[in-house]
Amino acid sequence: MASSSSSDSSAPQTPQLRKDSVTNRWVIFSPARAKRPSDFKSKTPINPNQQQQQCPFCIGHEHECAPEIFRVPPDNPDWKLRVIQNLYPALSRDIPAAEEENNSDSGRVVVNGFGFHDVVIETPVHSVQLSDLSPREIGEVLVAHTRRIKQLMSYDSIKYVQVFKNHGASAGASMSHSHSQIMALPVVPPAVATRLGSMKEYFDQTGKCSVCESNSKDLLIDVSAHFISIVPFAATFPFEMWIIPLDHSSHFHELDSEKAVELGGLLKLVLRKMSLQLNNPPFNFMVQTSPLGDNASQLPYSHWFLQIVPQLSVVAGFEMGTGCYINPVFPEDAAKVLREVKVS
Amino acid sequence: MASSSSSDSSAPQTPQLRKDSVTNRWVIFSPARAKRPSDFKSKTPINPNQQQQQCPFCIGHEHECAPEIFRVPPDNPDWKLRVIQNLYPALSRDIPAAEEENNSDSGRVVVNGFGFHDVVIETPVHSVQLSDLSPREIGEVLVAHTRRIKQLMSYDSIKYVQVFKNHGASAGASMSHSHSQIMALPVVPPAVATRLGSMKEYFDQTGKCSVCESNSKDLLIDVSAHFISIVPFAATFPFEMWIIPLDHSSHFHELDSEKAVELGGLLKLVLRKMSLQLNNPPFNFMVQTSPLGDNASQLPYSHWFLQIVPQLSVVAGFEMGTGCYINPVFPEDAAKVLREVKVS
Ligand SMILES: Nc1ncnc2c1ncn2[C@@H]1O[C@H](COP(=O)(O)OP(=O)(O)O[C@H]2O[C@H](CO)[C@@H](O)[C@H](O)[C@H]2O)[C@@H](O)[C@H]1O
Ligand SMILES: Nc1ncnc2c1ncn2[C@@H]1O[C@H](COP(=O)(O)OP(=O)(O)O[C@H]2O[C@H](CO)[C@@H](O)[C@H](O)[C@H]2O)[C@@H](O)[C@H]1O
Repeated sequence: MASSSSSDSSAPQTPQLRKDSVTNRWVIFSPARAKRPSDFKSKTPINPNQQQQQCPFCIGHEHECAPEIFRVPPDNPDWKLRVIQNLYPALSRDIPAAEEENNSDSGRVVVNGFGFHDVVIETPVHSVQLSDLSPREIGEVLVAHTRRIKQLMSYDSIKYVQVFKNHGASAGASMSHSHSQIMALPVVPPAVATRLGSMKEYFDQTGKCSVCESNSKDLLIDVSAHFISIVPFAATFPFEMWIIPLDHSSHFHELDSEKAVELGGLLKLVLRKMSLQLNNPPFNFMVQTSPLGDNASQLPYSHWFLQIVPQLSVVAGFEMGTGCYINPVFPEDAAKVLREVKVS
Repeated sequence: MASSSSSDSSAPQTPQLRKDSVTNRWVIFSPARAKRPSDFKSKTPINPNQQQQQCPFCIGHEHECAPEIFRVPPDNPDWKLRVIQNLYPALSRDIPAAEEENNSDSGRVVVNGFGFHDVVIETPVHSVQLSDLSPREIGEVLVAHTRRIKQLMSYDSIKYVQVFKNHGASAGASMSHSHSQIMALPVVPPAVATRLGSMKEYFDQTGKCSVCESNSKDLLIDVSAHFISIVPFAATFPFEMWIIPLDHSSHFHELDSEKAVELGGLLKLVLRKMSLQLNNPPFNFMVQTSPLGDNASQLPYSHWFLQIVPQLSVVAGFEMGTGCYINPVFPEDAAKVLREVKVS
């Protein structure tokens, strides 16, 4: 990996627009924005329902859930995690996978909502959060994701699988019991197509992988044997973090179980640093991987990573109108802060 | 405008993916999602600070604001609206408008944060909301937007101007006094480039404008002499609405003051219907227009519109990862509901 950096170690104080070769998305960095006042009352803190008797994701409540796909360990009433169908799926596994219906005259494109929408219950215990689990246990959650992706790959019509996690109500979670979700889609979604296109363009111009190149000293947070955590050069959100495998690898589901434990350790560290530094914020994490049809040798420019985003600001009219984001924290500053957080 | 429709009048009940030729963005329509429960406490309602003595946007507090650009009526202490500089601007008008600095080796693209960020105070009175104003007064707010855009056009380095409004804390507003914002950007932002590209493609294929074509009976809400309000075919958000000028016109700032009053009336109707039907939700509105350098004859495929989005759902991991949205309400259903709201 390269370690060159085009920016000074101390971040500039005037606003700056940046675009990196991974996301191809303009971001406005604007430190002045951080100081603006608000006359609205501050947000309610995370307020999960701790009454486990009402929670279908708790151990002993399996009958209140949609059907199970698998559990770990298998056939064990004393399970550690379960992958189940989502009871309110955004896509349906029970309808035909139809071709695109393109009414080119009216400009209206319609596709049957075929797909899969699953939930991963990450722990049997209601009060346990992902960052409370051991590196090995977090590794098992990640392996459950990869195992489910490998099952979903058998469907030709599935083009992309999105793994994500919502933690806390203002990060969108409707259930407080620790869980993540897996959605298998009949189309390659726009942000993925844009990311892949941008990485390909950079590769064609330089012969290098833009994710490998995003490793630079001023943006680094932590390292382990096979992974690094960084703040991306054009972070869309304040304190956004990426965990990147050092080996150039296009697909998340190629992760083996040994490296999954190591990744679990680095993810735990990132989540604990974020929690300590930012006062246990709501957050999302997203696996950024490659479309399923493409194999590794076809994708020399593509490199998967985990994206972790604390929910600190609201996406509003400017972002909705332009697709351009305003980030009050320069990535170099966020990386420095996160590097220095002491985790006991 | 065409009135053909490729969909039945009653919306389907299985999930569906849609993409329209304006936004070129996939949206998953999934009625089942509307029924899912939440074990988080419900959101706090809009809670504006009504203490006008602390609000810099109130009449008599002009000295607490950043410099004024103009007011209506001019030179009148008893003003109806003011356009002022944003005290915490995302972009700076005081730095040179530099060229793109493209470090092609590292893949890092940087542009100086030159630009303008203004606030439009829509009323002198703290407790008055935009929808409380008369059609003529709303028209004056819209004319203030167009007038400021015409001033900003004199800067060669300004490529696009985004006009938007945030209403309510969960729609991102930090100030409760009714206002909108104007941001002048040194780049054409990604969502605008995508929208223009998609409209151009449709025009090249069919010879028609995709916004003109989005007028169909099943999606129509209301009409006035020169404008219509609709729910777009692939609405990104539940109850998203567009107000479209019937005359094919590429730039919002071409709006004349007579039509602005008519548009003010239709906007008022849309906001009141939204408020009655959805219990006074937080909302954003965005002007979707064309880049400044391009003139009307160069843009036969481009057509401006107003986008109004009530904040009813949270953008979470799936949307952040994929750029694809999940909308639990079919546009035909939303349009029917909004058509039938009785406004006294
Ligand atoms: N008994 C049961 N058995 C099986 N599954 C059950 C269940 N009870 C509930 N579920 C499912 O569990 C999931 C919990 O998911 P999250 O809390 O992460 O957010 P949710 O998907 O509701 O919406 C958030 O994430 C989506 C996707 O990013 C956004 O569209 C949305 O606005 C945001 O609130 C829900 O999808 C729900 O359907
Ligand atoms: N005395 C004064 N004089 C002049 N201007 C003053 C002022 N006091 C405050 N301001 C400005 O007034 C504006 C009020 O704007 P809004 O309430 O619409 O949302 P804001 O821009 O804060 O952020 C929302 O919108 C932006 C853009 O969409 C998102 O990035 C963000 O997350 C979201 O909360 C602020 O931009 C503030 O800087």
